[in-house]
Amino acid sequence: MTAAAGEPGVGVTAPKGFRASGVAAGLKTSGLDVALVVNDGPLDAAAGVFTTNRVKAAPVLWSQQVLRAGAARAVVLNSGGANACTGPKGFQDTHTTAEHAAAALGGIGAADVAVCSTGLIGELLPMDRLLLGVDAAAGALTGDGGQAAAEAIMTTDTRPKTTAIRQSGWSVGGMAKGAGMLAPGMATMLSVLTTDAVADPEVLDAALRAATRVSFDRVDSDGCMSTNDTVLLLASGASGVEPTAEQLTAAVTAACHDLAQQLLADAEGATKEVAIEVVGAAGEDDAVEVGRSVARNNLVKTALFGNDPNWGRILAAVGTTAAAFEPDALDVAVNGVWVCKGGAAAEDRSAVDLSGRAVTIRIDLHAGTDEATIWTNDLSHAYVHENSAYST
Amino acid sequence: MTAAAGEPGVGVTAPKGFRASGVAAGLKTSGLDVALVVNDGPLDAAAGVFTTNRVKAAPVLWSQQVLRAGAARAVVLNSGGANACTGPKGFQDTHTTAEHAAAALGGIGAADVAVCSTGLIGELLPMDRLLLGVDAAAGALTGDGGQAAAEAIMTTDTRPKTTAIRQSGWSVGGMAKGAGMLAPGMATMLSVLTTDAVADPEVLDAALRAATRVSFDRVDSDGCMSTNDTVLLLASGASGVEPTAEQLTAAVTAACHDLAQQLLADAEGATKEVAIEVVGAAGEDDAVEVGRSVARNNLVKTALFGNDPNWGRILAAVGTTAAAFEPDALDVAVNGVWVCKGGAAAEDRSAVDLSGRAVTIRIDLHAGTDEATIWTNDLSHAYVHENSAYST
Repeated sequence: MTAAAGEPGVGVTAPKGFRASGVAAGLKTSGLDVALVVNDGPLDAAAGVFTTNRVKAAPVLWSQQVLRAGAARAVVLNSGGANACTGPKGFQDTHTTAEHAAAALGGIGAADVAVCSTGLIGELLPMDRLLLGVDAAAGALTGDGGQAAAEAIMTTDTRPKTTAIRQSGWSVGGMAKGAGMLAPGMATMLSVLTTDAVADPEVLDAALRAATRVSFDRVDSDGCMSTNDTVLLLASGASGVEPTAEQLTAAVTAACHDLAQQLLADAEGATKEVAIEVVGAAGEDDAVEVGRSVARNNLVKTALFGNDPNWGRILAAVGTTAAAFEPDALDVAVNGVWVCKGGAAAEDRSAVDLSGRAVTIRIDLHAGTDEATIWTNDLSHAYVHENSAYST
Repeated sequence: MTAAAGEPGVGVTAPKGFRASGVAAGLKTSGLDVALVVNDGPLDAAAGVFTTNRVKAAPVLWSQQVLRAGAARAVVLNSGGANACTGPKGFQDTHTTAEHAAAALGGIGAADVAVCSTGLIGELLPMDRLLLGVDAAAGALTGDGGQAAAEAIMTTDTRPKTTAIRQSGWSVGGMAKGAGMLAPGMATMLSVLTTDAVADPEVLDAALRAATRVSFDRVDSDGCMSTNDTVLLLASGASGVEPTAEQLTAAVTAACHDLAQQLLADAEGATKEVAIEVVGAAGEDDAVEVGRSVARNNLVKTALFGNDPNWGRILAAVGTTAAAFEPDALDVAVNGVWVCKGGAAAEDRSAVDLSGRAVTIRIDLHAGTDEATIWTNDLSHAYVHENSAYST
């Protein structure tokens, strides 16, 4: 087991008061697979947002209990196994992991340690290797371990994802993993955000919920919601600065948005990053519903893979929603070309340039003034390949 | 334009009192593309079920008006263009088509003629060719034209789909097209069913709704609902036999089920036909919701393409529903092997044989006694290929 070299100020160790590490414990066939993030205080305020899937992995059930107190001192994360659908033994393993980490760190209890796992569903973790990994990770903790921690939580990700939002005298840092299975209520994703701001748990919780609602929750890569999705926010207070709730929310949102866009850019097998901007909606919920319906439509997604501005499929997807609109008032632009006006063909579709990776679909419902953007990917051969071969 | 040769008693011409034809009018680059089905009576009772997509093609809007009277004398169907998202001109074209067919047939009006179209969305039909095709189809009508009519409505279908359910002294016949875009509230599919039973419009309507609810509505190939879906049922009464409502419903259901299974077998690029049997549900709606959620989950569908009995993904899909169940009480069998019991791994997944085309996923919610089966396909490279290349 070796710890990877880090660079100062990256990811979860960008804010003051945090140490982190990433080690190789043999849970995956190669690479780092156990990460540890420790909040050295003085505060231990924390908040969490979890998958809304009713089939929740053991670490989700555990961490929800930990976070109920509004505090956490450490987070253990592993790739190489989701510990989901593993019954009572799986939950016991998570408990053991938290206990083991608490003992290795000293001075804290299992209830201070959140746990996150990612990887295959339905298999028990090799606990001997995991616990040795936790020991190694505890021994490798440094103030510049953010990069190694971000690497240790990767599964099918092709690159680690970190962020740092620097404000005057305080900052928000973070890391995330996830590629594919991005869906509402979040992706199969794990994210740990850190801040050295002074904030109480209620303010942290409100900031995290506001931030995830407009970032991770609006990235919908393949509509599949995971059993393990977790976003944690830990505050050390080490900066001594107490931003307003608005300032904190803005910085956490910026961090989440940055990470969400990195997830989108690294989604399994995608050749396009697609922004679906729904405008003229009677309410934000309508805009989100329409955007999601288009984002999840396999016919729209395969058309984009084929560089085909197939607006008819977009209209058919809009038509399945309950949002307020009149079918003969719908306008659709693809990369700036209004191929559909008033529910029928308008500008020449051959004018649409889909050769690049970025695609913007703009849908005007002409039913109000609200709007929302949903981000997704195309549906490619590589997506089918990666997801048909993942567990066998 | 040439009419294809037919075989007696096939499809819509299996029951007495019907003539049909299929001709090549040049709407597609090759093959038959205009079909006509005529009810010679003595009855002209009819019922229709249409897409619930709010973006409805012109022929759907037209045919809904026609069927409101509970009667229809003829149906014109064309492939090579959906006439959807075509504005007022598209609706006018449908009206013109019905008028033209009524004149060609003589003795009936446009309001007696339903129209169905299928093909690309967003483009106007070449009316000159279509109207010449209607003339040719009227001239080619025969009592054995069921096969030619079924061929003329094919788009990406690889084979025509017909059925005939023979009862004592009366029968139900039918044809359907559709491959891919199969979805709830029906597929991108057109189907015309015929019967020589004596039945009034109310009984026909009830029979058709009962039949489609458990057949076409439960085939969910890719979750995408079309703008053009239409199922029509015409009764000639030519047998002189008046079955009970139960008998009629049973026969229409058998016809719809047969056609729905043919659609599934011919779904674009599929390598598997998957039956998702949900049992132990607290209600039929719960069973349907769970089945649909699994049927639409791209991760489940790609796993099946990869011959991978990935029950964890199945549980994750079940977990996104609002159905009554306890996560730790879920059982899942794949092709008879109970790979998951009580929400955790059970029998060895390597015992599952997924080498064949037929796959049965059985999910026991342990929450009641209701059940439902949803049929779907896997998600394959060929699906991505066909749907990324369809319009360009």
